Amino acid sequence: MTFGLAELAARVGGEVVGDGGLRLTGVAALDDATPEQVSFFSNRKYRVAFQASRAGAVVVEPGEDVPAGRTVVRVANAYLAFAKIATLFHPPPEALPEIAPGAEIHPTARVHPGAQVMPLASVGAGAEVGARTILFPGVHVGPEARVGEDCILYSNVVIRERCRLGNRVILQPGVVIGADGFGFAFDPEGEGQGPRHYKFPQVGIVVVEDDVEIGANTCVDRATTDSTRIGDGTKLDNLVQIGHNVNIGRHCIIVAQVGVAGSTELEDYVTLGGQAGIAGHLRLEKGAVVAAQSGVSRGVKSKEVVSGYPAIAHGAWKRVSVLVQRLPQLFQKTRELEDRVEALERQSAHEEVR
Amino acid sequence: MTFGLAELAARVGGEVVGDGGLRLTGVAALDDATPEQVSFFSNRKYRVAFQASRAGAVVVEPGEDVPAGRTVVRVANAYLAFAKIATLFHPPPEALPEIAPGAEIHPTARVHPGAQVMPLASVGAGAEVGARTILFPGVHVGPEARVGEDCILYSNVVIRERCRLGNRVILQPGVVIGADGFGFAFDPEGEGQGPRHYKFPQVGIVVVEDDVEIGANTCVDRATTDSTRIGDGTKLDNLVQIGHNVNIGRHCIIVAQVGVAGSTELEDYVTLGGQAGIAGHLRLEKGAVVAAQSGVSRGVKSKEVVSGYPAIAHGAWKRVSVLVQRLPQLFQKTRELEDRVEALERQSAHEEVR
Amino acid sequence: MTFGLAELAARVGGEVVGDGGLRLTGVAALDDATPEQVSFFSNRKYRVAFQASRAGAVVVEPGEDVPAGRTVVRVANAYLAFAKIATLFHPPPEALPEIAPGAEIHPTARVHPGAQVMPLASVGAGAEVGARTILFPGVHVGPEARVGEDCILYSNVVIRERCRLGNRVILQPGVVIGADGFGFAFDPEGEGQGPRHYKFPQVGIVVVEDDVEIGANTCVDRATTDSTRIGDGTKLDNLVQIGHNVNIGRHCIIVAQVGVAGSTELEDYVTLGGQAGIAGHLRLEKGAVVAAQSGVSRGVKSKEVVSGYPAIAHGAWKRVSVLVQRLPQLFQKTRELEDRVEALERQSAHEEVR
Repeated sequence: MTFGLAELAARVGGEVVGDGGLRLTGVAALDDATPEQVSFFSNRKYRVAFQASRAGAVVVEPGEDVPAGRTVVRVANAYLAFAKIATLFHPPPEALPEIAPGAEIHPTARVHPGAQVMPLASVGAGAEVGARTILFPGVHVGPEARVGEDCILYSNVVIRERCRLGNRVILQPGVVIGADGFGFAFDPEGEGQGPRHYKFPQVGIVVVEDDVEIGANTCVDRATTDSTRIGDGTKLDNLVQIGHNVNIGRHCIIVAQVGVAGSTELEDYVTLGGQAGIAGHLRLEKGAVVAAQSGVSRGVKSKEVVSGYPAIAHGAWKRVSVLVQRLPQLFQKTRELEDRVEALERQSAHEEVR
Repeated sequence: MTFGLAELAARVGGEVVGDGGLRLTGVAALDDATPEQVSFFSNRKYRVAFQASRAGAVVVEPGEDVPAGRTVVRVANAYLAFAKIATLFHPPPEALPEIAPGAEIHPTARVHPGAQVMPLASVGAGAEVGARTILFPGVHVGPEARVGEDCILYSNVVIRERCRLGNRVILQPGVVIGADGFGFAFDPEGEGQGPRHYKFPQVGIVVVEDDVEIGANTCVDRATTDSTRIGDGTKLDNLVQIGHNVNIGRHCIIVAQVGVAGSTELEDYVTLGGQAGIAGHLRLEKGAVVAAQSGVSRGVKSKEVVSGYPAIAHGAWKRVSVLVQRLPQLFQKTRELEDRVEALERQSAHEEVR
Repeated sequence: MTFGLAELAARVGGEVVGDGGLRLTGVAALDDATPEQVSFFSNRKYRVAFQASRAGAVVVEPGEDVPAGRTVVRVANAYLAFAKIATLFHPPPEALPEIAPGAEIHPTARVHPGAQVMPLASVGAGAEVGARTILFPGVHVGPEARVGEDCILYSNVVIRERCRLGNRVILQPGVVIGADGFGFAFDPEGEGQGPRHYKFPQVGIVVVEDDVEIGANTCVDRATTDSTRIGDGTKLDNLVQIGHNVNIGRHCIIVAQVGVAGSTELEDYVTLGGQAGIAGHLRLEKGAVVAAQSGVSRGVKSKEVVSGYPAIAHGAWKRVSVLVQRLPQLFQKTRELEDRVEALERQSAHEEVR
């Protein structure tokens, strides 16, 4: 697939400065791009790469200073425009309507004739799979589960019974939707066998709304009795843990290895940095931001940015973490002050006497 | 399935206050429950929800204040009783004895005729699967492995060769039992090819005892030469890492994303909070508790509660983490003290002179 | 398989002190070894176990003090020699050349006749699998992917389209190679539907070089446009997250649950401790070491050892973490100093007056 530069610019509402007649074959980073490829520049850090790049054309923002002879597409949001151009060259995979012979579809399942089920995938009793959805080898959709239209479920995704996915949902390999939440009642007698944990049956479901993407090997637990929810357009990275009864709003960003404990609520547009941990039964309000590796044990206000463990306001945390590193000097200074005060006290006693 | 309230109360040793003749169809949270459902109240935080709930009946503890007209079941351990009632409505899945045509059972494997092996699951050479155990699609039981009775292995669980599961074990989707432990000997010569890591063969096994539950995508590594062990009744949440040669006692609770490094021992009833990390070759004594996200690099005494990184006694850590946040004031105060001492010193020098 | 002790010693360049004619059947830890087994001693902590061990022979280093009557193999690097002896008793699994009837091989895939593909594994269109490589049940190799020679891919490993593995690569169960990187452009208009995240297509690949081992359920994301790379001989533990465009050098060690964010570069021989997090776009130079649970947000110099969050030089971090625990005393001392200074000031004012 090739595109003319003028067409690409038009598709993203940009303006060509230079040779609009160029034919392009793909996208690449500034360092790697060939004269047949489009690249992208917005981070000043990469100015040298921008100047040296062999790219046929580069997407830049309107104010950008451009070397003579360099063909660019000027557009307001360069990275977004570049993403759209990349999508033109690399459209998402399309379903080839077929149920492969090696797939296992329960006779009571309803797989849309426009869906594609690859070999070694299975769809359980009473489950539904929508039009143009692709199930890769090793995907298992449990009984009475529902997968919407235009979804991509990569290899070894598991959707347990009764869980529901909206449309245009992308699940990377190994995602687990609807494992039992971690809920046990402590039983001090254990029916005569000693103290132990009694499993609370987890009979709710997971609801994944439209346009959600979930990263490899991430787990979203089913609710105890109602639903764990991932709202429209939210993106989860790899190896994330979402506990039972968690309610995640729309268009949130949750980076790899984050854990969100049970019953916590994230309103819309919340961002959680990598490896952050959020305790249970909290509310993170709209647009709250949690820095990577933080441990959040209280609610976070709208647009508040928090860091650290326990997480506090990001500005306060930054000040404190600089000061912590100056503790050796502070201890030293305090020792010196003690000596000086003692000297003064001695002298003062002496004067008293005198 | 429906139950009369009197019967439910009898099953959990509780007492009905109100209409014992009610017929109930299920359980739900206070907010969601209908007049045909049982709910549960013990956390004072939810008193308003308790008063407003439409639930037909609510399980409460003996001392609880109950609004007039509200039917309740009074019982000593309300949450445990509610869990037992929920289990009556939602009994665990039962095996439908069958080896599905799409399953792959090695001719030398011994699958009990009362077990259920679903399509696309496999059982390797010489492996055993006990009565009433269910293997979901995509489960792979390796050669010479042994799975006990009444187990549930959800989709895409992997049991590697020779590992052993007891009875009533529940493995959520994607659990890996018996991957090689992470053991390498540094080889400074690398047989002439330069320094590199030489793999130490991991030839031990994993032993998972009775009544253990393990969460989605959790990994328990096989021992180097003997066994990694998960004791009776212990519950592991999702995405947990258990290193080789780790020995976990009975009835422990290990929350999501915890990592336990090699050869560490947890005695019975140990609790590890989410994302905690435990270094190798340590002993955590009976009933030890590690707070979420802590990093433990020394042994923990029986019933001791530790927090932080490095983890210290929880009370000390709480005091310290408050003080850390007051460091800006402490630095400020120390600067002021310096000024004041300097002023005193100047004055004192002046007086000396005088 | 049994070996004479003299032969074992010869194979590792060691010297028998004692009975070289012993026949041995395997390896074990000091505590568990029988008179037919070889064991190993180098950590002084285990001297009592060494003395008490029933092992037929023990591998020790040249300077070691050995009790009378104990047969040993003396060799320069005892642990490495023991690892090599263990490998003699437990050679890695060997491919039994066969494509199992229950495997799904695309007609255009090229599987070497010396490879073994087990039931319920699949190889996609145009993919290649090299000689003596083993694909366990549930492995899915995507279209145009390439797996080298002598590899072992355990159950439920997923290799997505076009990714490439070198020779002698070992992937533990559930590894995901080539999931989409986590890349989204924020779209403030969302084509009239409100602010949302626009997926940047991830069209690069992952390149895993020779002799790499990757732990269970670890994820290595494909690059945005070029390659994510894992260099020769590098070892990754379980549940690790490697972001898109990361470039990892040769012979690195990355312990369980580490996360490395996008575009970061690790030079050769870097070590990352368990649960450490490395921010994106950083460079960790040759031989850098990051302690467990640290959070690295700046580059790390060659052979530098860093700890903490944010990570600083390990020595500084150790001093600081001791001082943090003494904060209650420091606050107390500062309060006392204030009182003493105030007393001196009062006295001094009094003297002035006098």
